[in-house]
Amino acid sequence: MAGKLVKTLREAIALSGLKSGMSVSFHHHLRNGDYTLNMVMDEIAALGIRDLTLNASSLFDTHMPLEEHIRSHVVRKINTNYMSAGLGHRISEGLMEEPVDFRTHGGRPRDIALGTTPIDVAFIAAPAADCQGNCTGKIGPSACGSMGYAFPDAMYARKVIVITDNLVDYPLQGWSIPEIHVDYVVTVDAIGDPRGIVSGTTKITRDPVGLIMAETAVKVIQHSGLLKDGFSFQTGAGGASLAAAKFLMDVMVKEQIQGSFASGGITGYLVDMLEAGCFKSLMDVQCFDLKAVESIRKNPAHQEISAMQYASPAAKSAVVDSLDVVILGATEIDTDFNVNVHTDSNGYIMGGSGGHSDTAAGAKLSMIIAPLFRARLPIVTDRVQCISTPGRDIDVLVTQRGVAVNPKNQELMARLKDAGLPVMDIRQLKEIAENITGTPQRVRREGRTVANVIYRDGSVIDTIRSVK
Amino acid sequence: MAGKLVKTLREAIALSGLKSGMSVSFHHHLRNGDYTLNMVMDEIAALGIRDLTLNASSLFDTHMPLEEHIRSHVVRKINTNYMSAGLGHRISEGLMEEPVDFRTHGGRPRDIALGTTPIDVAFIAAPAADCQGNCTGKIGPSACGSMGYAFPDAMYARKVIVITDNLVDYPLQGWSIPEIHVDYVVTVDAIGDPRGIVSGTTKITRDPVGLIMAETAVKVIQHSGLLKDGFSFQTGAGGASLAAAKFLMDVMVKEQIQGSFASGGITGYLVDMLEAGCFKSLMDVQCFDLKAVESIRKNPAHQEISAMQYASPAAKSAVVDSLDVVILGATEIDTDFNVNVHTDSNGYIMGGSGGHSDTAAGAKLSMIIAPLFRARLPIVTDRVQCISTPGRDIDVLVTQRGVAVNPKNQELMARLKDAGLPVMDIRQLKEIAENITGTPQRVRREGRTVANVIYRDGSVIDTIRSVK
Repeated sequence: MAGKLVKTLREAIALSGLKSGMSVSFHHHLRNGDYTLNMVMDEIAALGIRDLTLNASSLFDTHMPLEEHIRSHVVRKINTNYMSAGLGHRISEGLMEEPVDFRTHGGRPRDIALGTTPIDVAFIAAPAADCQGNCTGKIGPSACGSMGYAFPDAMYARKVIVITDNLVDYPLQGWSIPEIHVDYVVTVDAIGDPRGIVSGTTKITRDPVGLIMAETAVKVIQHSGLLKDGFSFQTGAGGASLAAAKFLMDVMVKEQIQGSFASGGITGYLVDMLEAGCFKSLMDVQCFDLKAVESIRKNPAHQEISAMQYASPAAKSAVVDSLDVVILGATEIDTDFNVNVHTDSNGYIMGGSGGHSDTAAGAKLSMIIAPLFRARLPIVTDRVQCISTPGRDIDVLVTQRGVAVNPKNQELMARLKDAGLPVMDIRQLKEIAENITGTPQRVRREGRTVANVIYRDGSVIDTIRSVK
Repeated sequence: MAGKLVKTLREAIALSGLKSGMSVSFHHHLRNGDYTLNMVMDEIAALGIRDLTLNASSLFDTHMPLEEHIRSHVVRKINTNYMSAGLGHRISEGLMEEPVDFRTHGGRPRDIALGTTPIDVAFIAAPAADCQGNCTGKIGPSACGSMGYAFPDAMYARKVIVITDNLVDYPLQGWSIPEIHVDYVVTVDAIGDPRGIVSGTTKITRDPVGLIMAETAVKVIQHSGLLKDGFSFQTGAGGASLAAAKFLMDVMVKEQIQGSFASGGITGYLVDMLEAGCFKSLMDVQCFDLKAVESIRKNPAHQEISAMQYASPAAKSAVVDSLDVVILGATEIDTDFNVNVHTDSNGYIMGGSGGHSDTAAGAKLSMIIAPLFRARLPIVTDRVQCISTPGRDIDVLVTQRGVAVNPKNQELMARLKDAGLPVMDIRQLKEIAENITGTPQRVRREGRTVANVIYRDGSVIDTIRSVK
């Protein structure tokens, strides 16, 4: 058998048989510190390959050089689950001829597994790999912890190229992705900038509004009937969500509640909760900070999960299906509880669903935590500019002034009212905000479609129009 | 989502949609202690389902009740990699209308992955599982260690039923097979008899002939040029093979050779070598004894591998592709170095390739270790009754009287001669044996075909004829 180690990225690309019109994929565990996507796309451009479909689990501002590859028709189409504001603005201004297809963290592996979005060549940035391609994110100078989002790419791509800056002796101990999926291994000087890969420690909010929301969020959980032994939980890495995790930990420790697991992107706050006995396990699809990376390396109860196991509706079950409570964010929420996390108040793309609609669909209680208004714009509207997550999957909105329960969940509404929480109709929250900020002029964008929002079941749930 | 836990095996079978003519599969990690295959087949028979294809990674004498299910046409076809003598005799006598298809431990996952042998319902006996089907063999009263052979069944079967006698809280820590593959979970009183699952401690031979062969085997390895830092090794669980492992350990410790890995079915002797620093890792597709089970549970350097990662030619690489030396057995070897491990001297089925031809194909040095004769029958013949592993993949035969090197490996022949080892032509070994035992009357079986021997690439390499 010929060895898999090849000397240069260009050689690996040539060996993979990549041709114009094909599809390439990337995972986003190196986040805004990732060097590999730009490195690979530059080589591809230099090879004269064009009209590619780029399938990336997420895109960050460090990937702005993509703009040039789009302009020069190296990239024709983008499939992704999330896009930072830098590239998002360009897309919204009409940079691409074909619309971007936004999926969810569960929908992406579903569509890869079902063959809806076939991948010709997957590029796997690996913080450690051996010569046969066994690889892990847990060790090495560019350690990122979990490599959950890279699993479907490795398993289903026609050709798989592992790119590492840390080649170790065969066999690597504790691989995430086994050699059976890997065609070529390339070493480079650095796959990423550690400062951009994980933050030092994510900080909880000090903003009084955020703290009030966090306190209220925990009260909602306490009175939901779900906070008992076996409790499972997910939260984002936003300041108020982290504060909620911190307050929840205090309650769980005090009341000696032994939860089951916390899932999703993992921060040091959830590691603290694991170590304090609040949870028996962390189910980690992505590490957000150094403490999470250290924990997944050392603690067997901190378990890596693939994107399929996290959230795929094509899996026979996923972790999100066992979730009790998820705390999620929103840029807008409408009076039908539809949530937008794709565009900002001006209609520019600045995000994406990620696991938003997957966890909302799976969790028994899906909570949106958001301030009543941001930059003098109310968070509640009559109709969101973009439906990222349908209102049927949202149970409650927590703001600093009150809590709105989706009428579909009458039991929760009764529980929260009985507990004396400030429950009000979501239209009341909208009014309160508008009384302070005035009623904003909402511009419905009518330009051409620059992006499709594809729900986790494969259906197009909304489109995003150009801003210019 | 409906729960996966169902109350009875019969209910799970009904829910799976199993119908007459379909295919069911089983793994063999519980070996001769397995209760589940008989339990499942009895339920299937009671449900009136017939004409099934039974795909089992191996079959042991505990599975003799299959005979009745074959006679009553519940089972129409068998695909397996190994069959003990009890059932083997019945097959050889013409029990089944359709031939048994024997594959290898690498060929089976290949043909499952490629869809050549589709599985409708896989039954996974699991020493520990949670309510969503995450499962492992490492813990529980029926612990078997690695569950490597069950991976392809779980990944590719249309429906997957996990059977456990040890249901643990969700999420199980350290799953082998994740919930994404599992449809139903059933609990039973016991999945197996621990005394039959793993032996206490496998014993090395005390037979002087075996000890001479083991010593010679180690000398061959020492002089092969392969025994140096990074060395990798596999051996079977036979008495002489284990003695060879023990002697090899002494050499490696004394010469401070730091090997890379040992692979395959793992015994306590290989655990000793890992702990003594002879290897950095064990790549374990199956545990043969309690010490191996304890080790894989506790030592992260003792790693579980799937059947694909062990040996599948459909994988982009497998562990066998990185193997330096394998020690294998034989019931017969012919003067072209073809090896038989399927039938006994009378032509009765009593074994199968298992990983024999996979490791022989992958390893740099494939060694057969066998006594010159057994029960007054010479081991070397002009032509084996059944080709299990083709001679082109065998490098050397070690007997108590001399060593025969396959002429294709001139370098090895020169090395062993230089080292003063008793190298002779394989025909000489045949003569020496026949001078002692007399020339045996070899009966070429001419009955109908009762089994096909399918090589790891999917081609039929030989057939086995009926004995009666």
